Amino acid sequence: MRLTIGEARGLATRVMTAVGHDIADAQIIGEHLMDCELRGLPYGGLARAISIAERMERSGDGRRPIRVVQESAVSARLDGGDHIGYIVAYRATQMAIDKAQAAGIAVVGASDTWYTGMLSYYAEMAAASGLVSVIASNASPWVAPYGATEGRLGTNPICFGFPSTEDPIIFDIGTSAIMHAEVTLARRLGAELPEGVAFDGDGLATRDPAAALAGAFAAWGGHKGSGLAVVVQLLGILAGSPPIPPELAGFGYLIVALRPGLMGATQTFLQNAASFASAVRSARPIAGAPPVRMPFDRSRRERQMRLAENAIEVPGELVTQLTRIAERNPQSGSPPAGGEPGHS
Amino acid sequence: MRLTIGEARGLATRVMTAVGHDIADAQIIGEHLMDCELRGLPYGGLARAISIAERMERSGDGRRPIRVVQESAVSARLDGGDHIGYIVAYRATQMAIDKAQAAGIAVVGASDTWYTGMLSYYAEMAAASGLVSVIASNASPWVAPYGATEGRLGTNPICFGFPSTEDPIIFDIGTSAIMHAEVTLARRLGAELPEGVAFDGDGLATRDPAAALAGAFAAWGGHKGSGLAVVVQLLGILAGSPPIPPELAGFGYLIVALRPGLMGATQTFLQNAASFASAVRSARPIAGAPPVRMPFDRSRRERQMRLAENAIEVPGELVTQLTRIAERNPQSGSPPAGGEPGHS
Repeated sequence: MRLTIGEARGLATRVMTAVGHDIADAQIIGEHLMDCELRGLPYGGLARAISIAERMERSGDGRRPIRVVQESAVSARLDGGDHIGYIVAYRATQMAIDKAQAAGIAVVGASDTWYTGMLSYYAEMAAASGLVSVIASNASPWVAPYGATEGRLGTNPICFGFPSTEDPIIFDIGTSAIMHAEVTLARRLGAELPEGVAFDGDGLATRDPAAALAGAFAAWGGHKGSGLAVVVQLLGILAGSPPIPPELAGFGYLIVALRPGLMGATQTFLQNAASFASAVRSARPIAGAPPVRMPFDRSRRERQMRLAENAIEVPGELVTQLTRIAERNPQSGSPPAGGEPGHS
Repeated sequence: MRLTIGEARGLATRVMTAVGHDIADAQIIGEHLMDCELRGLPYGGLARAISIAERMERSGDGRRPIRVVQESAVSARLDGGDHIGYIVAYRATQMAIDKAQAAGIAVVGASDTWYTGMLSYYAEMAAASGLVSVIASNASPWVAPYGATEGRLGTNPICFGFPSTEDPIIFDIGTSAIMHAEVTLARRLGAELPEGVAFDGDGLATRDPAAALAGAFAAWGGHKGSGLAVVVQLLGILAGSPPIPPELAGFGYLIVALRPGLMGATQTFLQNAASFASAVRSARPIAGAPPVRMPFDRSRRERQMRLAENAIEVPGELVTQLTRIAERNPQSGSPPAGGEPGHS
């Protein structure tokens, strides 16, 4: 069914308060989920709200306040207190932005979080503040290293963001051959996975999503892609994640942000970045292929289109499920948010 | 023919002084070339010395002193003065190490350089100093973005390094489907390129190395790999490279180095990194496949083997060519090194 952006955002936010978030945190999560919908990534949008509710019910509420455990002029390390990554990473990113604007460069890590969402969301925040960023987030061992059939790596996204005189340039990829949310969705729909993206618990190739979830996904990109996933895991470990996190907990998030002015005239960098982007887009396409795109071009265009239409399409069944969760009373229907301010 | 490591290093160093480097710089370049040989990457070893000599003869000597053009407690920007990257990146890396050890994190960029060698060499330097590093280096537009047939990107390596209680973990990849040195070598040998790695000047697929050098190589890894190459180009632009550098000049080099102690107890990180590496290596291999490797495992093992043997194998013809260059008098046989101290 068709929802206005305001309706969809309101629904997402109400679900988040219903499962135990205060209104400020629920709005941060709701905005992020809405941005996925706007960009045409629905598995990370309203559908993700169901997975969040399930995780919070399954694990009970062990949340502790997010706190800064170590800090300097150029760094901070947060204990995420088992809060969801949308909130933890948002706060870590804001700290990195503030510190990088003051000191030129900063690194902020956060541990003990889960579901960090799209790293590009945080890279856009940094770019909007005029900063270059490098961001990584590790996860549970759902992914087998190259040459293996057993999980040791998360789906491990890595992201880079650059401001420019035109649109910021954002690059955000996962390092697994298939996304966790795609496999979960295939299981719900009873669909098969593509060839070559997963192993079952015995290490044999499988197209069955349930078997893949009990086994491991393949890494993307052969030994190079698998090595990049290793890097992301180590950046997560640097942020305080254990070497192999448990299921949907103990993820790490790391961001390095820096002012391009450290390297020379800021305006020169911004112009050169834009000029390079134009050069890439103007490269002669393969015969019969569409014009060359820069990373994020598709996302930006889809977002502009849906914002202009003020509408997103959501399966009716999903809206029904979400409405049911939203109508729960958090004091009785979901674990208490211990230590959090009152819910709306 | 078989050379001892001392003989090979001496030959490389003599060639570098013969083409106009002072002895200290020649030794830095020689060590780097030897490390390629030890790691079993001969196209970056003694063979590269020929390409260096050719480039210096072709372009004449426009070298200016390397200088720091901007500096803070957490950053520096070097003008590489058209010196070769082996020297410029070495100096930039040393500055990044010193600054990161003092301030916790630092970024150093260098512009106007060429041939930076293996980025892993610099990541090993940082890791030996207890630092995590992110390193990137852009190059001339030899590589077509995904979906294009015209060069806009360099072969654009990116590298990450992590210290641990065991061996450091080093990840270093190029983002093109084939290396520039491989194509050059294929042209010299009259060999064909593999399928699918290059376009000729008209944008048609080619296996002819000469046509590929006049056209463009493909990016590695589809749109994700191409996007990573875009990131590397932007990091080079941040370091002062023009958006599209000319042939074998104007490359950028960027390194971010940081102390893991900024995020918590250093020893905990070092142990967790080693423990993660062990977990990866112990993952069940695909049926019939060898044990799973971490990035750099092969390089480290080959280097240990050749160091133990104190020998490398080099084609006799290459030794003859190099000896001829080494016997030149730099004052008459190669362009003067203007502004450099006297040669040995």
